[in-house]
Amino acid sequence: DAEAAKATATGLCAGCHGAKGISAADSFPNLAGQKKGYLITALKAYRDKSRNAPMMNGMAGSLSDQQIEDLAAYFSGLKPE
Amino acid sequence: DAEAAKATATGLCAGCHGAKGISAADSFPNLAGQKKGYLITALKAYRDKSRNAPMMNGMAGSLSDQQIEDLAAYFSGLKPE
Repeated sequence: DAEAAKATATGLCAGCHGAKGISAADSFPNLAGQKKGYLITALKAYRDKSRNAPMMNGMAGSLSDQQIEDLAAYFSGLKPE
Repeated sequence: DAEAAKATATGLCAGCHGAKGISAADSFPNLAGQKKGYLITALKAYRDKSRNAPMMNGMAGSLSDQQIEDLAAYFSGLKPE
């Protein structure tokens, strides 16, 4: 449910990845229009720490499968610039 | 040098990520318009296997720093759709 994700995305993710999924820093990936399946895979890897990035491990650590699904739907639905 | 990367990108990467950096499969990330710095970080992580993904570890395993720089320039310069 992309709407449910909007609050999480705005509160948790926008600081680095931008409110519209276009990040302000060269080292943080843009998420707007990214593939949903890939976003789910990446978030789960950050959550279980099979992908090692302290910041993202922290951010994803407490996300439920549903929140991950919703966040992936939200960002993949945004228009890339 | 984005031109030098075009041959590598077309030969090595396009099969999964698309010739224009828009991948055909939901599990492969789009690369077009992605942040250059992030692409360099990700490719180096795949190269040194700190990011574990057998396919990408294989693909990135033999890339030089210059090739990684060129590929990142190439894909970040493509227009995301």
